[in-house]
Amino acid sequence: MARAAARPDPAATTADPAVAVADLDAGFAAWWAERRSAARLSVAPVPFRELPQWSFTRDGDLVHDSGRFFTVSGMRVRGPEGSGRDQPVIVQPEIGVLGLLVKHLDGEPHVLLQAKAEPGNIDGIQLSPTVQATRSNYTRVHRGGATRHLEHFTGPGRGRVLVDSLQSEQGAWFWRKHNRNMVVEPVGEVAEHPDFRWIALRTVRLLLRVDHLVNMDTRSVLGCLPPGPVLSEPVPRVSALTSWLIDAKQHCPWYAGPVPLADVGGWTRTETEIADVRARSFRIIAVRVEAGTREVRQWAQPLLAPRRPGLAVFLCRTSEGVRRVLVRARTEPGLGDLVELGPTVQWSDDTGPAVPEEAGPFDGSALSGDPACVRFDAELSEEGGRFHRAATRYRIVDADPSLPSDDAELPDDYRWLTPHQLHALVARGHHVNVQARSLLACLASLP
Amino acid sequence: MARAAARPDPAATTADPAVAVADLDAGFAAWWAERRSAARLSVAPVPFRELPQWSFTRDGDLVHDSGRFFTVSGMRVRGPEGSGRDQPVIVQPEIGVLGLLVKHLDGEPHVLLQAKAEPGNIDGIQLSPTVQATRSNYTRVHRGGATRHLEHFTGPGRGRVLVDSLQSEQGAWFWRKHNRNMVVEPVGEVAEHPDFRWIALRTVRLLLRVDHLVNMDTRSVLGCLPPGPVLSEPVPRVSALTSWLIDAKQHCPWYAGPVPLADVGGWTRTETEIADVRARSFRIIAVRVEAGTREVRQWAQPLLAPRRPGLAVFLCRTSEGVRRVLVRARTEPGLGDLVELGPTVQWSDDTGPAVPEEAGPFDGSALSGDPACVRFDAELSEEGGRFHRAATRYRIVDADPSLPSDDAELPDDYRWLTPHQLHALVARGHHVNVQARSLLACLASLP
Repeated sequence: MARAAARPDPAATTADPAVAVADLDAGFAAWWAERRSAARLSVAPVPFRELPQWSFTRDGDLVHDSGRFFTVSGMRVRGPEGSGRDQPVIVQPEIGVLGLLVKHLDGEPHVLLQAKAEPGNIDGIQLSPTVQATRSNYTRVHRGGATRHLEHFTGPGRGRVLVDSLQSEQGAWFWRKHNRNMVVEPVGEVAEHPDFRWIALRTVRLLLRVDHLVNMDTRSVLGCLPPGPVLSEPVPRVSALTSWLIDAKQHCPWYAGPVPLADVGGWTRTETEIADVRARSFRIIAVRVEAGTREVRQWAQPLLAPRRPGLAVFLCRTSEGVRRVLVRARTEPGLGDLVELGPTVQWSDDTGPAVPEEAGPFDGSALSGDPACVRFDAELSEEGGRFHRAATRYRIVDADPSLPSDDAELPDDYRWLTPHQLHALVARGHHVNVQARSLLACLASLP
Repeated sequence: MARAAARPDPAATTADPAVAVADLDAGFAAWWAERRSAARLSVAPVPFRELPQWSFTRDGDLVHDSGRFFTVSGMRVRGPEGSGRDQPVIVQPEIGVLGLLVKHLDGEPHVLLQAKAEPGNIDGIQLSPTVQATRSNYTRVHRGGATRHLEHFTGPGRGRVLVDSLQSEQGAWFWRKHNRNMVVEPVGEVAEHPDFRWIALRTVRLLLRVDHLVNMDTRSVLGCLPPGPVLSEPVPRVSALTSWLIDAKQHCPWYAGPVPLADVGGWTRTETEIADVRARSFRIIAVRVEAGTREVRQWAQPLLAPRRPGLAVFLCRTSEGVRRVLVRARTEPGLGDLVELGPTVQWSDDTGPAVPEEAGPFDGSALSGDPACVRFDAELSEEGGRFHRAATRYRIVDADPSLPSDDAELPDDYRWLTPHQLHALVARGHHVNVQARSLLACLASLP
């Protein structure tokens, strides 16, 4: 179950200096600075007893009084010969909407992004999609305002739907969470608002290189866009790939099920945190939030706080003009079918996903510091509404030429895929995990 | 929550007399009579305490000593304003294989079917697919023999894969059960065995009209075959349909979660059954089985026993040479996303699926006894390995001409779809429920 003790520190490898917003787009930079000063979000850790409207059930689950919003409960993972572990998990059995409006301005596709503060954000505000709404948001369970621009994604005012699929989120931290990822071309007028800005898709792709700027939900939706011009390419046949993925699901030796938080072994609860006794995995904490521009002006909530940044890397290779990335069929206990396609290399906390993972054969290449090989390298944030300062280092690295280009010579859980093949799988929903979708968004930013 | 009290009795409507096997194919009939006499399966109800290797946990769940096979646990369904109910549910978190071998003989496609006895079968043996194996079967948890012909579906001897998808099963009785549905053209020799017979696909489609002959698993796989010659038609674009289905999932007001069986309200356990106090829903019983030809010669197991037959009906219509069927986006609490496409009309037990369903607008047409309108009408069995004498009346009926042919004039959960559109959704997996897949198999038998 232990990962190699001498795990390299991703932060210690050489990389380009962080890209600065101001170097990319002066108009954007001015707006961004202005929004940041307007946001005034203050976040302070509090004991669990100072979470109004939240309480622990007799089973130990941390629940909202409405019975909705989300719940911190437990997950039990069991594998071959009794191996496995328990862990807390965030349960939110609802379908939220992550929606991006797109339209052509000056002949170029632009998307409407939102400067949005979330309590777990590393840098205050980040670039969110046009709509980022849980069901609790849009049915106003916690008494916020109506979700702005939602009318373009649902109901009679819906625009032309370009992308629409259900996609999973972190299977190491969520119990079967999924959201509806949509890209829509509006048919009606889109109201202006100071928190929102039309930004050229080309610029957004440059902004992906800025640490902690483009949020996870935006990346997830961008990762659902076709790699070329929208819908211009024939859909590749992917039946051999879906069969391979079903093989992995069928033969996955792990089983995960929900358990009450009180039954989660190896974890303890104090006044201020739920943590594993070995202090190696994430913690559950509580925060009080005071906001300027957010829908609700003051609230408190639990957050999942990882202890250190994760890593997600695509090894890639171009031959005869065709780029391919190396994907892995990856087990994460909170995913509906346990297995989806993920990056070549993916780590989260040091104890990581509950399903154990030995040091992989590609860790060395993934951490390469050779500037000639590193195509993309930025530290980006995971969802700031549920996670506290959760960062992942995303990298795209040229594969070592010695790596076999024939799938048959690779371990059976790895395959070389073109971006078009990956997109065809993304479009089906529940086939490509959230880290890989982020990397697909980053991949589209490469020349 | 109550369905209209005056529910019509499906068995009371006029229908064709049952089709007899001998009238269809004399060679088949002789083999079938011979297999039936060889099967010698005897099934007797027993008290739960006489189930060796099964016991009740302190949470009341009925589990196999191996911790695998399957479990009878509980499901809690909650809807708007506190409505909902609890019920027992069969939990089997594994992916089994339902596999059909197909090859051309005398220029005509034939499939390899199996005469297989299951403890819950109404008529002793039924026609099963080439392979019908739970993970427990093929990893031999309950010490049966190796699964015959499995090598054509998995591993290096796998043939040419024509159909491969994960499909749900009864969402009213199973907790998120799914199986891998495969159609494979073998590349190697297929060993002969007296329980197996190559039967022309055309004949199998006639045999579907015989009550309780072609089992649910065979129908499920047949329902995944393309409606025309294999792969000859372009795949229709279904993005508007998948968006409509995601709408239904997103706005579904129901939530279902697992609970221990001891926490299921309104149900009681005696020595011999688990039943709802109003005696309206299915029961859980136990049976002892002695078999001649089955892998294990003697065993005992729980079964879910419905109190009465269900009903599943497609209304159909042909205009300008194109046949369409009326499908409904249907909520069933045990389905992964709660909603899949189902028949126009579907009932199970009188209290039916846990999610309540009012009498629908199409019940009258669905029960039509007019022989000029009834295209298909047979009482077929659901899975005899988990259900005790579970029958469903499957019907395909011409829609009344007064029914709107424009989807916009129908309730929003109904749509007219061509068989090709439905097939494109079936091929994605988890889009079309098991009753609708059975009806698709029956639909392919129409002239």
